[in-house]
Amino acid sequence: MIKVGVVGYGTIGKRVADAVLLQDDMELVGITANTYNYRIKTAYEKGIKIFPVNSLLNMVWSGIGVEGDFDDLVKQCDVVVDCAPKGAGQKNKDRYKYWGIKAIFQGGEKSSVGKSFVSQCNYDEVLGSDFIRVVSCNTTGLCRTLHAVDKRYGVESVHATIVRRAADPWDIYHGPINAIVPTLELPSHHGPDVQTVLPHIEIFTTSMTVPTTVMHMHSVTIDLAKEATLRDVIELFDNTERVRIVKNTEGIRSTAEIIEYAKDLGHSRGDMPDICIWEETVGIAKNKLFYLQAIHQESNVIPENIDAIRAAMGK
Amino acid sequence: MIKVGVVGYGTIGKRVADAVLLQDDMELVGITANTYNYRIKTAYEKGIKIFPVNSLLNMVWSGIGVEGDFDDLVKQCDVVVDCAPKGAGQKNKDRYKYWGIKAIFQGGEKSSVGKSFVSQCNYDEVLGSDFIRVVSCNTTGLCRTLHAVDKRYGVESVHATIVRRAADPWDIYHGPINAIVPTLELPSHHGPDVQTVLPHIEIFTTSMTVPTTVMHMHSVTIDLAKEATLRDVIELFDNTERVRIVKNTEGIRSTAEIIEYAKDLGHSRGDMPDICIWEETVGIAKNKLFYLQAIHQESNVIPENIDAIRAAMGK
Amino acid sequence: MIKVGVVGYGTIGKRVADAVLLQDDMELVGITANTYNYRIKTAYEKGIKIFPVNSLLNMVWSGIGVEGDFDDLVKQCDVVVDCAPKGAGQKNKDRYKYWGIKAIFQGGEKSSVGKSFVSQCNYDEVLGSDFIRVVSCNTTGLCRTLHAVDKRYGVESVHATIVRRAADPWDIYHGPINAIVPTLELPSHHGPDVQTVLPHIEIFTTSMTVPTTVMHMHSVTIDLAKEATLRDVIELFDNTERVRIVKNTEGIRSTAEIIEYAKDLGHSRGDMPDICIWEETVGIAKNKLFYLQAIHQESNVIPENIDAIRAAMGK
Amino acid sequence: MIKVGVVGYGTIGKRVADAVLLQDDMELVGITANTYNYRIKTAYEKGIKIFPVNSLLNMVWSGIGVEGDFDDLVKQCDVVVDCAPKGAGQKNKDRYKYWGIKAIFQGGEKSSVGKSFVSQCNYDEVLGSDFIRVVSCNTTGLCRTLHAVDKRYGVESVHATIVRRAADPWDIYHGPINAIVPTLELPSHHGPDVQTVLPHIEIFTTSMTVPTTVMHMHSVTIDLAKEATLRDVIELFDNTERVRIVKNTEGIRSTAEIIEYAKDLGHSRGDMPDICIWEETVGIAKNKLFYLQAIHQESNVIPENIDAIRAAMGK
Repeated sequence: MIKVGVVGYGTIGKRVADAVLLQDDMELVGITANTYNYRIKTAYEKGIKIFPVNSLLNMVWSGIGVEGDFDDLVKQCDVVVDCAPKGAGQKNKDRYKYWGIKAIFQGGEKSSVGKSFVSQCNYDEVLGSDFIRVVSCNTTGLCRTLHAVDKRYGVESVHATIVRRAADPWDIYHGPINAIVPTLELPSHHGPDVQTVLPHIEIFTTSMTVPTTVMHMHSVTIDLAKEATLRDVIELFDNTERVRIVKNTEGIRSTAEIIEYAKDLGHSRGDMPDICIWEETVGIAKNKLFYLQAIHQESNVIPENIDAIRAAMGK
Repeated sequence: MIKVGVVGYGTIGKRVADAVLLQDDMELVGITANTYNYRIKTAYEKGIKIFPVNSLLNMVWSGIGVEGDFDDLVKQCDVVVDCAPKGAGQKNKDRYKYWGIKAIFQGGEKSSVGKSFVSQCNYDEVLGSDFIRVVSCNTTGLCRTLHAVDKRYGVESVHATIVRRAADPWDIYHGPINAIVPTLELPSHHGPDVQTVLPHIEIFTTSMTVPTTVMHMHSVTIDLAKEATLRDVIELFDNTERVRIVKNTEGIRSTAEIIEYAKDLGHSRGDMPDICIWEETVGIAKNKLFYLQAIHQESNVIPENIDAIRAAMGK
Repeated sequence: MIKVGVVGYGTIGKRVADAVLLQDDMELVGITANTYNYRIKTAYEKGIKIFPVNSLLNMVWSGIGVEGDFDDLVKQCDVVVDCAPKGAGQKNKDRYKYWGIKAIFQGGEKSSVGKSFVSQCNYDEVLGSDFIRVVSCNTTGLCRTLHAVDKRYGVESVHATIVRRAADPWDIYHGPINAIVPTLELPSHHGPDVQTVLPHIEIFTTSMTVPTTVMHMHSVTIDLAKEATLRDVIELFDNTERVRIVKNTEGIRSTAEIIEYAKDLGHSRGDMPDICIWEETVGIAKNKLFYLQAIHQESNVIPENIDAIRAAMGK
Repeated sequence: MIKVGVVGYGTIGKRVADAVLLQDDMELVGITANTYNYRIKTAYEKGIKIFPVNSLLNMVWSGIGVEGDFDDLVKQCDVVVDCAPKGAGQKNKDRYKYWGIKAIFQGGEKSSVGKSFVSQCNYDEVLGSDFIRVVSCNTTGLCRTLHAVDKRYGVESVHATIVRRAADPWDIYHGPINAIVPTLELPSHHGPDVQTVLPHIEIFTTSMTVPTTVMHMHSVTIDLAKEATLRDVIELFDNTERVRIVKNTEGIRSTAEIIEYAKDLGHSRGDMPDICIWEETVGIAKNKLFYLQAIHQESNVIPENIDAIRAAMGK
């Protein structure tokens, strides 16, 4: 049994904890907690062990039984999945080194924190690594489909426009409410981040933020090395793991309907970890391939984190 | 075993079907289907029997095995839950009569379609009825809390402002995107509809629509007959079935966070069938009681439908 | 000529400056500026004099000719309209006292900063005052209609639900994008704030925030002392200054269409400084009066500020 | 004086009418009206002559003085600007032919209705034409910048992702409220439509709709024939008519702030007829040029319509 701790219990952390609980070869040692809130309360009621990083008294007063502090959690683990806010993972890394344990970081951390990882692209390269970085939801989404296209047809160059959801569904603090906000860095960070996983792919990305909470959308243009047919490309995506073809003919017209579909499928929290490509948006013009793909920012990296745990342990 | 059919497999119908499948004393005979789409496909893959009301060929072409038509479903049932679009239930009623079966209608139908019903308010009154109408999500929400307050303190009069979500999460067709739309009927239909369940309560409602998909919000003002204290009122709501006190101190700041909480609790589809009242919004000024309550339009009537099935069967 | 300075050149400040420029008896000495941006650039290009409160160099580098600092502006004025962010006005007040000039503050400041003011309610009371506080957009809106109703029918008590736009149109930083956020203070501050202008009116307010940028909406319930008829109430509002009856029969169905109407009328910036009441939402039940009113948060206090300048100067 | 009639008085029609009133060489004969509403009322109050196409009585009852019907308007004009809803222009064309007058159509009509037109691209080609079609806002926006780039550097091929605002600000009827909706036609119609104006440009477009009302956004990728430098491209756009460089360094961070800037500039209705390109989003990688441009769907074709009137009259 791999002993796993989860540091940071937000959007990603709570999903990783849920996923660890479902694995036969893993044991969830516990989670860290910053402040008392419904998330921590619910975790505690589910029987998850809580290790407060501060506000210990606040937890106790609220009736949460606590198991120790950050180090008490870490030292019991074989591997920690660090889902702390952007930048905090880098700071925590010293503690992981001190206790001699392995750690999985998220895409918000700089790429120097560990080996960048997308399961179907470079599992073997990270095998046994002490520190692995699961790249961001957008980068993961791009890597999954680009890798498949590259293996089959060869990718000469890529331009992707990343249309980002502005906030997660629970997040009432961030806007915009009624505007499109261009990302004023060019290329956006997504392109270089893809190259941390697929270094030989030439890619340029442009990005903007729109007032929705449900999913990101990518408009991808690829210059192919070999000729492709529409039918073949759709079949390729259909056969690619963690990629799903969705169709207007089945009534899936929007990102909102993808999430409704995920709920109908009985997915926990209405999550859709697969990258969804609309069949009707795949197009070919000469050597160029076009498609639109939707990325569920809350869940697509969860299977990657589970894989990364096993990869770190050398499985 | 009560044999139940579900007519109309949209937002409410699919949840009723799921709920029927969970009951020990009920059997789901099947559902009707209008057109092939991801909802019907998913139901079929779950093993639910499909009875197309039209576009039979379309279903067959799409690989859906079908069991007959509308009448084939109806005649096998003890009771049908009619979740067809507004107005269709009234038309279907003749078929239910013809086949001599009982039916549960939704709040979109006129109140003449059957006895209006909220479980904790008038279960006994509808016992054994052939035709029961589960009132709308907003009316159900108002009835639950008003009934509790009325029993304890006596309600002299009520004014409620209903701030409605404009569309369900999957619905990309309706706006507004950036406006508040007043309901130009006064009182809004919610007040008279409450009186179909609680006829002695004097109530006036005003309504508007806002650009959100997640929950309705009610601002309720009640003139009480007896004196009340804040602590007592909160305790009353806390002890009322299908009503839940939520708290800013637990990090639940908005309707979005209620749904996030429901997901954390593991509720199917992220549903919150309880009416949620913020502890911090309950106020008393002289004989007036104020509170804000959130209503999950997709799910709060689901337990009511299950209760209505049993009530119709005389249980 | 009254010499007027504007401190703070944001949503309100720039509109006050524009309005001052239109008055025959006023002269705009200049405005303060925090940082270089399109607002300051545009003001400079219009010939308005700029007095940076910091980042002087930044202004100069950007080609803005500057006239001095905060004190240089203030000492040339008879009266300053302080539109600085919430709380800053209180701090600036000492400078106004030092230079012996009068000042108008906005509703974000505490009521102790000056005499609270709504032109049609208490002009005479503030005449000649050194420090006047134009109350917030919501409070101003409530005062205008409540004062009119009170004079005609007598107001026994009021409950208003304030449904607030979450951010101004240009503000991309604040959410929520898809949620309703209750105000967790009860009564909301609007009720007590109305009483700083109309102290004898008993009022209780509840508030929430919704994802729109265009206007606030109030659902108002008034217990009247005298009987009223619908026709009379509508006529009363129609004849009340800075209140406007809007109608569904003229195609005005929402807050968005009020702004479209304002644009059609040729109003600068699409502003609607009048409080708009939908004719179809005015209702009477026994002694209770109900109505929905829309408040344009960006502009309804602008005429109040102009009046306050004259009031301060004893006109 | 060119005698101009405006058929259809919606988003575009009312702006064309306003613009015609400002021209020294044009006279506005009048407008058609479908139903009584605030738009027609306001036009009438401004002194514009009203020609109802139906609901004559409704107009009269509402106090609108009318001047005749559709034909009465048309026969007095030299040229009609047809801003009727999509498809209606084609039907009206027979009446224009019957009366022997010229007509300007909008981009919603099929390209066969008249010569497709963007002023700076093909003014000479349409000179004296009886029927001219001002292409849609998105097509106009693409043509303006592509034409400039093509003339300077040569355009080998273009891919653009069109991120569309879902509804105009006044439109409360269309969604989505919280979703991204891909356009399920590939290429989207924008590419072929650009080629009706610039037939030699190879272009492929992908499109999606997002929940905002303020502006469209285009992510443009161009393969250039000649080498370009960043500085040169920005200067080129800066010197291109009806194109405007906007900057984060001036505080313009989003489409919402472009509109705020337009209001500050005193533009009628807060309109921004220029195509706005963010300086910070212009990028070059090898022979590829990237930029993000914002298009104000309500106003960018208004100067094109005015130009088209003169072109039709042979000026």
